[in-house]
Amino acid sequence: MAERVYLDYNATAPLRPEARLAMLQAMDIVGNPASVHKEGRAAKRIVENARRQVAEMVGCQPDEIIFTSGATEAASILAELAKTRAIVVQDTAHDALWVHNSHQSDAAQDSDGDLVFAMGLANSETGIITPPPDPEGGRWPLGVGRYADWLLLDVTQAVGRIPFSFAWSGAQMAILSAHKLGGPKGVGALVVRRGTDISPVLKGGGQEMGRRSGTENIVGISGFGAAAAASSRDLADGVWENVAEIRKILESALADGSKDTIFVGYSSNRLPNTSCFALPGWKGETQVMQMDLAGYAVSAGSACSSGKVKSSRVLAAMGYGPDVAGAAIRVSLGPGSQREDVLRFAEVWRQKAARYRARAA
Amino acid sequence: MAERVYLDYNATAPLRPEARLAMLQAMDIVGNPASVHKEGRAAKRIVENARRQVAEMVGCQPDEIIFTSGATEAASILAELAKTRAIVVQDTAHDALWVHNSHQSDAAQDSDGDLVFAMGLANSETGIITPPPDPEGGRWPLGVGRYADWLLLDVTQAVGRIPFSFAWSGAQMAILSAHKLGGPKGVGALVVRRGTDISPVLKGGGQEMGRRSGTENIVGISGFGAAAAASSRDLADGVWENVAEIRKILESALADGSKDTIFVGYSSNRLPNTSCFALPGWKGETQVMQMDLAGYAVSAGSACSSGKVKSSRVLAAMGYGPDVAGAAIRVSLGPGSQREDVLRFAEVWRQKAARYRARAA
Repeated sequence: MAERVYLDYNATAPLRPEARLAMLQAMDIVGNPASVHKEGRAAKRIVENARRQVAEMVGCQPDEIIFTSGATEAASILAELAKTRAIVVQDTAHDALWVHNSHQSDAAQDSDGDLVFAMGLANSETGIITPPPDPEGGRWPLGVGRYADWLLLDVTQAVGRIPFSFAWSGAQMAILSAHKLGGPKGVGALVVRRGTDISPVLKGGGQEMGRRSGTENIVGISGFGAAAAASSRDLADGVWENVAEIRKILESALADGSKDTIFVGYSSNRLPNTSCFALPGWKGETQVMQMDLAGYAVSAGSACSSGKVKSSRVLAAMGYGPDVAGAAIRVSLGPGSQREDVLRFAEVWRQKAARYRARAA
Repeated sequence: MAERVYLDYNATAPLRPEARLAMLQAMDIVGNPASVHKEGRAAKRIVENARRQVAEMVGCQPDEIIFTSGATEAASILAELAKTRAIVVQDTAHDALWVHNSHQSDAAQDSDGDLVFAMGLANSETGIITPPPDPEGGRWPLGVGRYADWLLLDVTQAVGRIPFSFAWSGAQMAILSAHKLGGPKGVGALVVRRGTDISPVLKGGGQEMGRRSGTENIVGISGFGAAAAASSRDLADGVWENVAEIRKILESALADGSKDTIFVGYSSNRLPNTSCFALPGWKGETQVMQMDLAGYAVSAGSACSSGKVKSSRVLAAMGYGPDVAGAAIRVSLGPGSQREDVLRFAEVWRQKAARYRARAA
């Protein structure tokens, strides 16, 4: 049986060897970081070391990092903020942000109230990079005379793949996840600018300086730190420029002889690793299953949620009709992706596309 | 240098070899459980296998388990419930429950409203086991004519150490944590009785059947499952009866010639592994540091929070004055604890206690 080819890095990336090693070492640390004895202090050091590694990648101070169980928990700070502020969410944002949209609420309509704008720096489905609006007088214009007082940036798909600096971004908050970087699943961070007054989502023992209670996921956090450090090195070493080259090869091969294939965001500023394309009418779900049987892991729409594949909200928000939005699939590459793999993928996809066209004709 | 002796299992237990092995295997699984392709399905199987293992230990149905980042996140369901119900929390409960107490609020005073009672089955500091009140007509009497409609049981310290069955308990909800069982830190579960209508704390991608969003902590969950299975076996094999024997040896040795030492809850029904004792006036904090330097990891008060050691709220709630509450230390044993270790500990402690008495005299 042919080897599997994993082309779904935006859903989750394989664990980096550096992360695995750090996690193995963390497994030997017995203590609870809250304990004052030697075993507790050793556990605490693991957390603080990882905090420095993640801060370095994110471009923030270590004490601006709050470790969470992932980007979704980090995004839930919006539910806390929604108690006193209106939340406006970018229409192509991930569901973890989108669920907190209070666009329709009275609070959001009231232009006098404080307003938080939450947006993704890079879209998980299309890879399209959206820079935040240029601030005007310390606030972010949202159009029609409305301004956001706070900006929350979802950098989950962007950080470690394109240059990013939280300090430079001007945002109050950012959210990210370890597993898109080759860290473990189930750990992430909420980045909160120094001096920003927030109420914790999880209350209890008072861990993370009182900003997030719950015994720390030592093994996960150590893997997160190591993956962040490795990602920073990769970015500096130009690894993602190579990934962009491989994507170019993929897209050329896919387009070859397939004039009816639409590449979403082709001329936009995109992440170096993501290709979202559609052969109108050919269901994305069907393609994913056919390519899976052929040995390739890709996805249709966002990977999240219940395993059900539904037509993409993101593509609909971009103005694509159901024939395209329902037909889009995403190939997302990583540092491990090979030129030969994407060429084989493109060849198989084109064969199946030709068969689809023949049946549909 | 002498070997360290870890006697702080209630703060966190060493990782079980079974958990370590399961975690190592899970590290090789590339996929996101939400993905429909082969890699995604493999990740999903890990989660579902662990769910069965945890359900078996807890005595519930697998679909009653919602994986969380720990007991604290699981307890935060109380914040969600507090939107429409009064929450009454047992006064010796862990901070993760205690912060949700709405005892003083108007809602709690209004005896017409639905009421949730949250309590710990076993106390982390003293090991004292408190069975839930016997239900009357499907409700739990809280005294003075008040009744709880729902019961939430914190079984974090109890499950896997004493027989427990969620099905049998009658509770609507239970919370637990993997790391007290020898699983990894940063993973736990909220158990919710079938048919109970709850709103999720973390919203987004819709994982865990829409009841807890966020990409699953595959490595942590696999370790949790394996630790649960190992704990169930240990409990059946009588391992904790042996632990109770070692505690008896410890307490006899501590009491020998120290008539002024108070054993908290000595004649109560206690967890088999926990000993909480005080030499009135000798600060618990000082003892913990002295014993740490001598090679023993024990704790004063609850392990949680910022590493600061404060006088125990739990002992104060039991009616102990500051001279005892501030002097209590906790030794908590596990399957790995040895008779020789506790005897050496007791000897060192008695020497230091004698020195304290001499100085205090």
